Amino acid sequence: MVKWLDEIKWSDDGLLPVIAQESVSGDILMFAWMNRESLEMTAKIGEAVYWSRSRGKLWHKGESSGHTQKVLDMRLDCDNDVLLIKVEQQGMACHTGRHSCFYQQLQDGQWVAVDPVIKNPDEIYGKS
Amino acid sequence: MVKWLDEIKWSDDGLLPVIAQESVSGDILMFAWMNRESLEMTAKIGEAVYWSRSRGKLWHKGESSGHTQKVLDMRLDCDNDVLLIKVEQQGMACHTGRHSCFYQQLQDGQWVAVDPVIKNPDEIYGKS
Repeated sequence: MVKWLDEIKWSDDGLLPVIAQESVSGDILMFAWMNRESLEMTAKIGEAVYWSRSRGKLWHKGESSGHTQKVLDMRLDCDNDVLLIKVEQQGMACHTGRHSCFYQQLQDGQWVAVDPVIKNPDEIYGKS
Repeated sequence: MVKWLDEIKWSDDGLLPVIAQESVSGDILMFAWMNRESLEMTAKIGEAVYWSRSRGKLWHKGESSGHTQKVLDMRLDCDNDVLLIKVEQQGMACHTGRHSCFYQQLQDGQWVAVDPVIKNPDEIYGKS
């Protein structure tokens, strides 16, 4: 039994929403989910390990891209049901090759991509 | 029909996870949910309106505490299913009277409250 894991209020699906913030810039990089196993592993190895809902398996961020997230700080919210991790990001956080996943800004009733693609996704995932 | 609202991938419950970040400091203040109606209202009035899952109704943040959130920027993530809002926070974001809801830090296997209570909740909610 690991007490700090037991204090978390997991969703009915056994998941916890996780916000990843870049420590040095304060930028929000991404949002994902962890289950108990992935959170325990995150704490153990010091790198973000999420639960991929679409693939139904553990997802060690950066396992294929090299864009790992070193976890510097972990914060739980007042309801014990949301986690904030402050990370040191290798490369880009977004699978589109952008620094952050939150690159679409609402402008006059339209979502506009305002942040640049830093690296082509085909290069990141070794398809070229 | 409002196109920018239709582009959002709502959950099966018709909800969208929302991260509120303080614009001036970069601090993550809170995490909550919006439905279509609350997001439309947020855009219309320029202040954060969430959907309270526990109370099952619209929740104009600050309606009882005065701690409103003026929305300066709205960002949608790469999957169109998570929203980041950058806000100007009046008073404190957390119902515990703290600046942010993310005040519990993992230290040596324990969650420790590391941020101070700025204002007694009884004062905030007019119970004293």
